[in-house]
Amino acid sequence: GGGGVDSLDYEVIENYAYREEQAHRGKLYVGYYVAVKWFFSLLIGIGTGLAAVFINLSVENFAGWKFALTFAIIQKSYFAGFIVYLVINLVLVFSSAYIITQFAPAAAGSGIPEIKGYLNGIDIPGTLLFRTLIGKIFGSIGSVGGGLALGKEGPLVHTGACIASLLGQGGSTKYHFNSRWPQLFKSDRDRRDLVTCGCAAGVAAAFRAPVGGVLFALEEVTSWWRSQLMWRVFFTSAIVAVVVRTAMGWCKSGICGHFGGGGFIIWDVSDGQDDYYFKELLPMAVIGVIGGLLGALFNQLTLYMTSWRRNSLHKKGNRVKIYEACIISCITSAISFGLPLLRKCSPCPESVPDSGIECPRPPGMYGNYVNPLGELYDFPDIFPAFLRQPLQFFCKTDNEYNDLATIFFNTQDDAIRNLFSAKTMREFSAQSLLTFLAMFYTLAVVTFGTAVPAGQFVPGIMIGSTYGRLVGMFVVRFYKKLNIEEGTYALLGAASFLGGSMRMTVSLCVIMVEITNNLKLLPLIMLVLLISKAVGDAFNEGLYEVQARLKGIPLLESRPKYHLRQMVAKEACQSQKVISLPRVIRVADVASILRSNKHNGFPVIDHTRSGETLVIGLVLRSHLLVLLQSKVDFQHSPLPCDPSARPIRHSFSEFAKPVSSKGLCIEDIHLTSDDLEMYIDLAPFLNPSPYVVSEDMSLTKVYNLFRQLGLRHLFVVPRPSRVIGLITRKDLLIEE
Amino acid sequence: GGGGVDSLDYEVIENYAYREEQAHRGKLYVGYYVAVKWFFSLLIGIGTGLAAVFINLSVENFAGWKFALTFAIIQKSYFAGFIVYLVINLVLVFSSAYIITQFAPAAAGSGIPEIKGYLNGIDIPGTLLFRTLIGKIFGSIGSVGGGLALGKEGPLVHTGACIASLLGQGGSTKYHFNSRWPQLFKSDRDRRDLVTCGCAAGVAAAFRAPVGGVLFALEEVTSWWRSQLMWRVFFTSAIVAVVVRTAMGWCKSGICGHFGGGGFIIWDVSDGQDDYYFKELLPMAVIGVIGGLLGALFNQLTLYMTSWRRNSLHKKGNRVKIYEACIISCITSAISFGLPLLRKCSPCPESVPDSGIECPRPPGMYGNYVNPLGELYDFPDIFPAFLRQPLQFFCKTDNEYNDLATIFFNTQDDAIRNLFSAKTMREFSAQSLLTFLAMFYTLAVVTFGTAVPAGQFVPGIMIGSTYGRLVGMFVVRFYKKLNIEEGTYALLGAASFLGGSMRMTVSLCVIMVEITNNLKLLPLIMLVLLISKAVGDAFNEGLYEVQARLKGIPLLESRPKYHLRQMVAKEACQSQKVISLPRVIRVADVASILRSNKHNGFPVIDHTRSGETLVIGLVLRSHLLVLLQSKVDFQHSPLPCDPSARPIRHSFSEFAKPVSSKGLCIEDIHLTSDDLEMYIDLAPFLNPSPYVVSEDMSLTKVYNLFRQLGLRHLFVVPRPSRVIGLITRKDLLIEE
Ligand SMILES: Nc1ncnc2c1ncn2[C@@H]1O[C@H](COP(=O)(O)OP(=O)(O)OP(=O)(O)O)[C@@H](O)[C@H]1O
Ligand SMILES: Nc1ncnc2c1ncn2[C@@H]1O[C@H](COP(=O)(O)OP(=O)(O)OP(=O)(O)O)[C@@H](O)[C@H]1O
Ligand SMILES: [Mg+2]
Ligand SMILES: [Mg+2]
Repeated sequence: GGGGVDSLDYEVIENYAYREEQAHRGKLYVGYYVAVKWFFSLLIGIGTGLAAVFINLSVENFAGWKFALTFAIIQKSYFAGFIVYLVINLVLVFSSAYIITQFAPAAAGSGIPEIKGYLNGIDIPGTLLFRTLIGKIFGSIGSVGGGLALGKEGPLVHTGACIASLLGQGGSTKYHFNSRWPQLFKSDRDRRDLVTCGCAAGVAAAFRAPVGGVLFALEEVTSWWRSQLMWRVFFTSAIVAVVVRTAMGWCKSGICGHFGGGGFIIWDVSDGQDDYYFKELLPMAVIGVIGGLLGALFNQLTLYMTSWRRNSLHKKGNRVKIYEACIISCITSAISFGLPLLRKCSPCPESVPDSGIECPRPPGMYGNYVNPLGELYDFPDIFPAFLRQPLQFFCKTDNEYNDLATIFFNTQDDAIRNLFSAKTMREFSAQSLLTFLAMFYTLAVVTFGTAVPAGQFVPGIMIGSTYGRLVGMFVVRFYKKLNIEEGTYALLGAASFLGGSMRMTVSLCVIMVEITNNLKLLPLIMLVLLISKAVGDAFNEGLYEVQARLKGIPLLESRPKYHLRQMVAKEACQSQKVISLPRVIRVADVASILRSNKHNGFPVIDHTRSGETLVIGLVLRSHLLVLLQSKVDFQHSPLPCDPSARPIRHSFSEFAKPVSSKGLCIEDIHLTSDDLEMYIDLAPFLNPSPYVVSEDMSLTKVYNLFRQLGLRHLFVVPRPSRVIGLITRKDLLIEE
Repeated sequence: GGGGVDSLDYEVIENYAYREEQAHRGKLYVGYYVAVKWFFSLLIGIGTGLAAVFINLSVENFAGWKFALTFAIIQKSYFAGFIVYLVINLVLVFSSAYIITQFAPAAAGSGIPEIKGYLNGIDIPGTLLFRTLIGKIFGSIGSVGGGLALGKEGPLVHTGACIASLLGQGGSTKYHFNSRWPQLFKSDRDRRDLVTCGCAAGVAAAFRAPVGGVLFALEEVTSWWRSQLMWRVFFTSAIVAVVVRTAMGWCKSGICGHFGGGGFIIWDVSDGQDDYYFKELLPMAVIGVIGGLLGALFNQLTLYMTSWRRNSLHKKGNRVKIYEACIISCITSAISFGLPLLRKCSPCPESVPDSGIECPRPPGMYGNYVNPLGELYDFPDIFPAFLRQPLQFFCKTDNEYNDLATIFFNTQDDAIRNLFSAKTMREFSAQSLLTFLAMFYTLAVVTFGTAVPAGQFVPGIMIGSTYGRLVGMFVVRFYKKLNIEEGTYALLGAASFLGGSMRMTVSLCVIMVEITNNLKLLPLIMLVLLISKAVGDAFNEGLYEVQARLKGIPLLESRPKYHLRQMVAKEACQSQKVISLPRVIRVADVASILRSNKHNGFPVIDHTRSGETLVIGLVLRSHLLVLLQSKVDFQHSPLPCDPSARPIRHSFSEFAKPVSSKGLCIEDIHLTSDDLEMYIDLAPFLNPSPYVVSEDMSLTKVYNLFRQLGLRHLFVVPRPSRVIGLITRKDLLIEE
């Protein structure tokens, strides 16, 4: 696997330039460095928060106007209303697909597998570019606003990561803010920390769940962890929370149009059921099992869809991708508009006193932005008068409501709010819920993998809460006397589906609690997640792992494969003929070696005076390319020079590779025949102490070493002939 | 540092016995192993949950009866009441100190530094023994029930860890359940996972905060992390939550005496202020700063106290320790009884409509167990009649209340509930709060380090919420129009003090949210914690680090010290003369080498046919001792034998060291003079592939390697002469 993707270098390359730089750094520098790191965390938080506010504001306004207009027009003609609805959706989806295909192909999908790969040590070209950021933001406004069965949460994680990475390098690779800015965070290692912060910030912004963000970054995305980083990631999430809250407070006055009515909690269910009886645990376990099954099925179906798309459909070019998105948009519009029409309206139940719920709900109740009644007065006077009259949707009499429209013909956020709602017993008929489940599940599978930014969180919550509510209805019917809320079951269903598909645990649990503001449900959510994850794991891997594999992202999982136990290090590199370089090498030889293979690291071998060979380090292809291009280190003599006598010609940051791009390439470098005859001494530029393992270490141990330290290269060497010393805990605790 | 403590071996020792065992294991075995692991997590959850319920039940009943009796008696005579109160406290504290000093010295204190050390790789003798567990449980019942200024939460973490470790080895070292049980979890590595679960379970049980438990284990205690483990830790916490909830549900009917009235949330503040104005951020920042200062001061003062105790007081023997605890108990009783008496009662404010709070509070409002009125009817008829009449405490008229008694003469849980309470503006006077703060702070400092189990969470919350409420009072006075609750400020104060003293962040934040059930305060708690931790860090290390250092627990922090940057591996072991063993060695030589030094690992050197030396591995002192004791591997010939030809005489688990005890010692082993003349071939028993680093790797890198992999020994070797192969990501992703 992994054609075309390169690894990142998380190792600190302690070459001459690095050591020079270290020697010149005082304690003051360390303080400055730490201060800048925190400042960057602040900026990432602010940036991601603002991006989230912008996306939400745009989506809610587009969707709000769309529903308002449609509601108004169907008073006169259903057909005209449908056409308007369809066209608006189509335009939004088209613009999204157009942006993605023409401008930012790396912004398609959720981006989480790519970010996961990045933090696992693989650099997928294009993932963290400026154009990807732009494509992600505007693309997801189009695709979510256009009513497709996808969410904006996954893309926000990618957005956060892009913002972090771009900040770290001082703008896009083309237009830097200035040349000194990026000096600090040029290494892959520092950038990794920033991207981790960005990723947590994305979740924090998407779900307004700061703790969930930290845990998501920790559990799902990063492959390694340092507790110092936790603190900074937490800070970033806190900043996001403050930024989003401030923006929402600011929008409450109405200046942001349809956006801003909601609070910091997305779907407040705190007035629902918050205790449980032991006999309820059985139906809850059933929800967990259903979640595991449907989630695993979802992963499998999307796997087939995506590989089919890759292998046949998307090979035909961008035009086909755009057509595909547009067709799916039309189908989605037709289903969400048409199905409620086919469904007969139900009479309103007797109103429950002091629940505060009216039937039929006044249009304002559809959520904070789909408010045809309220919005009417927003239409300027030039609009026809019928737009300014109260509306009745789909039903003939005043005392009826359409349960399918309540969830289908609505933005996803409002649909979820309706499904989660408490004290609305029997609002939905089983038939409607089943229809919706089947339809929406199919739509979600089909939509997955189109060339638009697409998250799976909100669709997953939709699917899960539908069958959760269905189970809840049966429970209400069978366990008559208990104080059961269908909305609570819907919430558990949502958790179970996400658990069954994405296989997250702690972070998902915390996110669910944070978005619904009901801590008392925590043990129940835990239980459901445990079951759904276990059931799902019996069938396949989690959604992101499946997708990463499909995209050729060679993730190193945290646990080594079973068969590695029986192998030793030597066997993993049995067929290799190691290509190594001498300390002083002709430029022509370097060029030909670099041309003849694609390896990214080469051992450097020196000879002692007594004629023995000695491995003095590892030199990276990218560093060799920098040396060949700059040419200042070429020398005429084939003899090594004393590194301490020569001036330093490179600063450490010159060797850094730009993020998410191929970097230099041997074909780009022009060498004259004079150049080719010269020599270069590699000693100052190599990594003098790469990690080594002896030839018969078992591969499990090698794997753990490689993965825990985030390595890129590891030398397998013969057993040593003697031990110079033993390092134990005591030796590392020496005081200054 | 670190006299007497030994490191743990987290490394898998791939010796001959291990490889034999691996070869005989099928995939089925792996399944069995995983199943047992999960089953153990379940048991740990249940065990810790039950221990927590038992401790809480006992403490609340002791305290409940104590207050009921005292309240009743002071109706007749203040002096008699005081004596009764003092004597009950004294008896409880004495029993606690007696248990600790005579029976389980390792159970003193909170135990968190020790557990932290264990999970960092240091085995402190006695920490995880059965007697420690018993001492911890009964000791904390005595010390908390006796009204000292300490909490039961820290000890519960230790309790959870003990339960986990004991389960893992099948009971105490003396009385195993059976001999086959412990085979599975004999290695330090597996035991570490269990202890991590136990530690999370402890927090989950103490605060009824399952997510907080996971995060606490992750952030504060463990030094390494694997995402598979997170899932299991989470499961354990969920089980604890269910067990505690079940027990509390069961106790609601009253069968548990004074215990069981509370819900799953300890101090519900969800009816308080849940929004904030920007100008409130200033006083909140002030709270953060105060928290940082007082927390750092607390760490410093307790450091002085503890080191003074260690160096002078506690050297005088156990009797002095018991006297000390008793004296502190008397002082605490006198202060908490006497100070409210000196304070004049205040008139009740006009009652706030619909807040549901009465003044003077009926005694039942002091909490769910200090209910003299309610409890009266619990006294059997043999008690005098006056015990069965309604009571008035300290105040002369019916329309007054004593604010100092509200917080001082009360269990800590109830005092905190009162401090956190909303809609009780101006309940406390600034004078009372200041008095309480000064007194309680002093008591907490003085009590810290006595020979009883003692946690610092609840005292920290007490201290913090006192000054928090104080700040809140000023805010109410200055920002008149805002909807401010003093209780919210008290909560923030509590978070700030814990942040300033323990320096936890994410986990503390989640714990605070879980125990107070108010998600909306999350960003504010985050802010306060950020500030208080930063302020505290400017002065000293966190409480647990300070204490660990004092106890001689050589923790490896996550970040290497600055001066390690300038050193290389060679320099760390410069002064060493490496003591190594030949492959086949005379038993007499082994014995004399083991006697002559205290090293725990020895390189084993062999000679090739061509006469070159070759390092073939590392043998541990503990393994050598096992070999010397069993004697079955002694041979007469000084020639190496073929390991594949000889029968396996040891199972892998025979080499495992029992937890928390010194294990074998060379002085315990009796060798006859015949034995001494024999030889032993070490090849089958050594670790053939210890980790190695080359001599000039910088110590920062060495440190990271050592710490991230949890190593015990690391060989410093000369540069290799050749590279056999390079391992990259591609080589580790080979499919079966
Ligand atoms: N200098 C070398 N000499 C011989 N074989 C090498 C050398 N470097 C790498 N290899 C082998 O060639 C294969 C591909 O090498 P490559 O350097 O591309 O690593 P990779 O796994 O693709 O990771 P990266 O993302 O760094 O390219 C691997 O199997 C590796 O073991
Ligand atoms: N075989 C050996 N030969 C020479 N020096 C050694 C040897 N083993 C350890 N040392 C050195 O002796 C000192 C103490 O060794 P020891 O084995 O007690 O390690 P430690 O740091 O105390 O850890 P542990 O907890 O494993 O005992 C260390 O500085 C170590 O480098
Ligand atoms: Mg490659
Ligand atoms: Mg030692």
